[in-house]
Amino acid sequence: MQGFVKVTFQPVGQSVYVPAGETVLEAALEGGLELHSPCGGHGTCGGCRVIFASTAPEPTPEDSRHLSTDEIADGVRLACRARLACDSVINIPESTLRKDSKFLLHGITRALRLSPSVTKVSLEVKQATLDDQRADADMLAEGLGADGRQVSISHAALASLPRALRAEGHRVTAVIDSLQVISVEPGDTSGALYAVAFDIGTTTVVGMLLDLNTGAEVAVSARTNPQVSYGDDVVSRISYAGNGGVGKLHQAVTACVNEIIEDLAAQAGIATTSIYQAVLCGNTTMSHLLLGVDPSFVAQSPYVAAVRAAVRTTSTAAGISINPAGSVVVLPNVAGFIGGDTVGVMLAADFAHSDRLRLAVDIGTNGEIVIGSRERLLCASAAAGPAFEGARIRHGMRAASGAIEAVGAQDGRLVISTINGQAAVGLCGTGLIDAVATLLDAGLLEPTGRLISQEEASGVSDDFRRRLQTNSTGPLFILADPEFDGAARQVVLSQRDIRELQLAKGAIQAAIRILLAEYGVSAGDLDEVLLAGAFGNYISRESALRIGLLPDVPVGRITQIGNAAGTGSKLVALEREMLEEAERLSLHARYLELAGRADFQSIFAESMMFP
Amino acid sequence: MQGFVKVTFQPVGQSVYVPAGETVLEAALEGGLELHSPCGGHGTCGGCRVIFASTAPEPTPEDSRHLSTDEIADGVRLACRARLACDSVINIPESTLRKDSKFLLHGITRALRLSPSVTKVSLEVKQATLDDQRADADMLAEGLGADGRQVSISHAALASLPRALRAEGHRVTAVIDSLQVISVEPGDTSGALYAVAFDIGTTTVVGMLLDLNTGAEVAVSARTNPQVSYGDDVVSRISYAGNGGVGKLHQAVTACVNEIIEDLAAQAGIATTSIYQAVLCGNTTMSHLLLGVDPSFVAQSPYVAAVRAAVRTTSTAAGISINPAGSVVVLPNVAGFIGGDTVGVMLAADFAHSDRLRLAVDIGTNGEIVIGSRERLLCASAAAGPAFEGARIRHGMRAASGAIEAVGAQDGRLVISTINGQAAVGLCGTGLIDAVATLLDAGLLEPTGRLISQEEASGVSDDFRRRLQTNSTGPLFILADPEFDGAARQVVLSQRDIRELQLAKGAIQAAIRILLAEYGVSAGDLDEVLLAGAFGNYISRESALRIGLLPDVPVGRITQIGNAAGTGSKLVALEREMLEEAERLSLHARYLELAGRADFQSIFAESMMFP
Repeated sequence: MQGFVKVTFQPVGQSVYVPAGETVLEAALEGGLELHSPCGGHGTCGGCRVIFASTAPEPTPEDSRHLSTDEIADGVRLACRARLACDSVINIPESTLRKDSKFLLHGITRALRLSPSVTKVSLEVKQATLDDQRADADMLAEGLGADGRQVSISHAALASLPRALRAEGHRVTAVIDSLQVISVEPGDTSGALYAVAFDIGTTTVVGMLLDLNTGAEVAVSARTNPQVSYGDDVVSRISYAGNGGVGKLHQAVTACVNEIIEDLAAQAGIATTSIYQAVLCGNTTMSHLLLGVDPSFVAQSPYVAAVRAAVRTTSTAAGISINPAGSVVVLPNVAGFIGGDTVGVMLAADFAHSDRLRLAVDIGTNGEIVIGSRERLLCASAAAGPAFEGARIRHGMRAASGAIEAVGAQDGRLVISTINGQAAVGLCGTGLIDAVATLLDAGLLEPTGRLISQEEASGVSDDFRRRLQTNSTGPLFILADPEFDGAARQVVLSQRDIRELQLAKGAIQAAIRILLAEYGVSAGDLDEVLLAGAFGNYISRESALRIGLLPDVPVGRITQIGNAAGTGSKLVALEREMLEEAERLSLHARYLELAGRADFQSIFAESMMFP
Repeated sequence: MQGFVKVTFQPVGQSVYVPAGETVLEAALEGGLELHSPCGGHGTCGGCRVIFASTAPEPTPEDSRHLSTDEIADGVRLACRARLACDSVINIPESTLRKDSKFLLHGITRALRLSPSVTKVSLEVKQATLDDQRADADMLAEGLGADGRQVSISHAALASLPRALRAEGHRVTAVIDSLQVISVEPGDTSGALYAVAFDIGTTTVVGMLLDLNTGAEVAVSARTNPQVSYGDDVVSRISYAGNGGVGKLHQAVTACVNEIIEDLAAQAGIATTSIYQAVLCGNTTMSHLLLGVDPSFVAQSPYVAAVRAAVRTTSTAAGISINPAGSVVVLPNVAGFIGGDTVGVMLAADFAHSDRLRLAVDIGTNGEIVIGSRERLLCASAAAGPAFEGARIRHGMRAASGAIEAVGAQDGRLVISTINGQAAVGLCGTGLIDAVATLLDAGLLEPTGRLISQEEASGVSDDFRRRLQTNSTGPLFILADPEFDGAARQVVLSQRDIRELQLAKGAIQAAIRILLAEYGVSAGDLDEVLLAGAFGNYISRESALRIGLLPDVPVGRITQIGNAAGTGSKLVALEREMLEEAERLSLHARYLELAGRADFQSIFAESMMFP
């Protein structure tokens, strides 16, 4: 046994690479999952049962001692004894997962105490007699108050209470959110307690279904934000909203959220009424539209939001199709162009407690940048535009099958790789950055962004030189061609594409430079640079450094943290104190308005240059 | 000047009888209205201006000093100087009414501090700049927090906030209910702040419109509860509800409430959106149906309600058409057959603070009786049936034009009076009680309730004797006849009618007797008997005593307090602490279940007898 194996834990959906030969217990710990192992992993208690969905290793003597023959045949093993020999998929039963678990986030772990604001209490309610004729609600409150809880009962819960109480002999499950009984269900339904967490992007909406009894993410689903038909970027959405379109934009995004919820529930085989909370974040405009609040004034000086604070409302008022008694929480914003998604990133990356000086960059249609530590936080927004998402690029496309996602050079020849290994059909954002970095390294691109001509390309390999061409729109570089490398079609990088990239990276770089200067530090002082967002997660860190998108730090200090905004929503759903922490972060982070700065244009112009 | 004059104060709608010659200031005080008179009524400050709608008295020298000639011509006078010579109608301007006023309730006054839970604050909200880009909601919260208030802002208020702020240059009015901003209106709308208070009777629904800036009742409207088409009494409504009819009954009563609200708003010339709270009370079944809560189990042993406590919900959830951001409060119940209407009576009559031993009787289709003082409260419910409302009585009718409302004897002849003096067409509840009392006095009715025959009627006047007749259904007494007294039709009181009355008064009397015994007192110990409800207000106290409906106390100890249940709702709308007091009363009053008592049938049978 040598090398690394990939282990995927279900239903959490967490994958981790570990050296072959490690035990499942050790691998789980590296994946942020603490398993129930009272004996400390010595094979004596039999508490850490897991189930191999892929081929299970040979049973150990301890397995034979603690497990039945049927269990062993079904792939059940003790996690502390089972050693991983190959890529494996392992189911962790609820009973094996420790509830005080950690939450893995692509390189960042933060402690999580599973304590959602919505809980269920199953109880048998005392029955009235002629000597004790107290009302149903009073009897329920007494039962729930046995452990000192003082709860009120909502109007909706009261309406169903008499029948619910008597359906299964006064055994009911009370659903409690923030000290109020929001629903009473007949029998014991405490096993079915779910929340959904969302990241509402300008372009993409991602939803996750969370089992609040285990903290596990049991399903994920994403859709294109249907608001794109009203404009690609935030500013065009705001403009549409300002012309009476708030209602339409609100309906579009809630319809999308509801479709995702349907899909999540179907994936997990649960009813949407078993979902009692939806936690959502998005940029300020998305948050406003989600709540049906007009964001018009975000786009007009002095660029103010209608609402900064977190909003707590009902699923009915928000039009979100979970349990009708459910609650909806929208993460707080910082300012007009720094929204709840950035607060989600700060929450996920634990900016409230970290002493280290960190810079977090969330690259999307809009780029949001945060710098600081628990002492002080500064943030700014950069209008990168959609170039990183493949828009306004001649052969640009979303990150889909056949997109060139990586570009490099080997022995003087251009090397490309495409998503799913399909014949190249276009260029996505990561490929775009790689391509520019490669051209810079090859000396075909000047620091100003000018592509040199074939004639100027002396000392350049043949393969690279032949790809330098000029057509009616100007110079271009051929990335793929049916003639050169059997591609499905010709994919080029034009001079104009490079200018688009310069605008996008210039906006981000300028914002980072201004933030560093305002913070009074230089790039070298940064302990870590966090790259958030789907795009940030797939980007080549080296290429990002090469083109100057990121400040000049050693590549080892750059960490890709995935959809951290969505993770922020998850944290709020899983631990009720997180909303307060989000609120504090939203007040603590100071927003720097770049539009108001005299020096912005010159710094932006400089930042368009390549290093 | 001698005798009494009747003064009606507007817009409060309060009438009071005072000795002629009293000043308006004195009369207002007797009516529970404290006027603004900083100088103490010496005519020196000019603060107590009132406007005579009827003929004004001659102006005094102080009037001439403080008022313009035009004002004097318009009927303005100083209340401390103007003496009442005749029946008068007087308008009290808002500026003259002291807000810490008392509330008159047909003979009962209780202190009221005008402090509704819903208030309005008009303010100019600070505008953002590039140096202070705080969100609209944060700026509003800061403005509202200037006096130490910490408020949250509802989702609905946020949705309209950006436009509302900018409609009139950042001058807005915040509507605040229970520390939450529920609505933000452009400009200064603080003058338009209303609530509605309701008494939801099994038969009649009464609504009152309250101006929360003055505490004045500005309109009243009543309708028949449309639920009557699903059954006359509470038990038949419950039965209909139990067969899946909750929704229909809920819709029927809310539709009725909404019609009344429309009417109240039209009367006062205001928009229904200026009404921000609805406070309602009713018996337990009515309260349940109003909220859409199934009352079925109230009618099955052990007769428990779904909810005892007060319910606070939104106008939208309750389906009540006031401002969509408004709140709805339903008064707490005591038990399955003692509801929020009785709590309203206890609140209005100030049972929480009174040291005196009092008995309150609210006679409706169901009778509710409360005995006690602040030390101890006991209550019971008596199923009187609809006889007092004219139902199940041969010529019975509601208290409407042409109903015989009073019956007596003068010089050996029967004397009747009808509502509006119209020719007699039927007999209403008050007339029924008077008729029976008159027959008892005349010796035509035996204590058992047996009507004697014409033959047995020796020593009885000719007029009475000729009215004693017998037809196929048995003996009867003719109250009105075209032949005898030119009535429009014959109206009789039959032996069967008398039996119906005996059942109704027997139920009430039995409940009172049991309550007195449980409380360990006798009728003579009662300091006061309060008669609540529309019927109780019009009944002849002497006749009620004569037939034994009320315990044997001197007539002077009986006070008629009108629609005290509705007054309870009004108190809760006008003073926010009242809801807590209602809640305490609802917990403090002990309910005595008569159905569970072994001695009930025998006491009931005895109580059917006449004294």
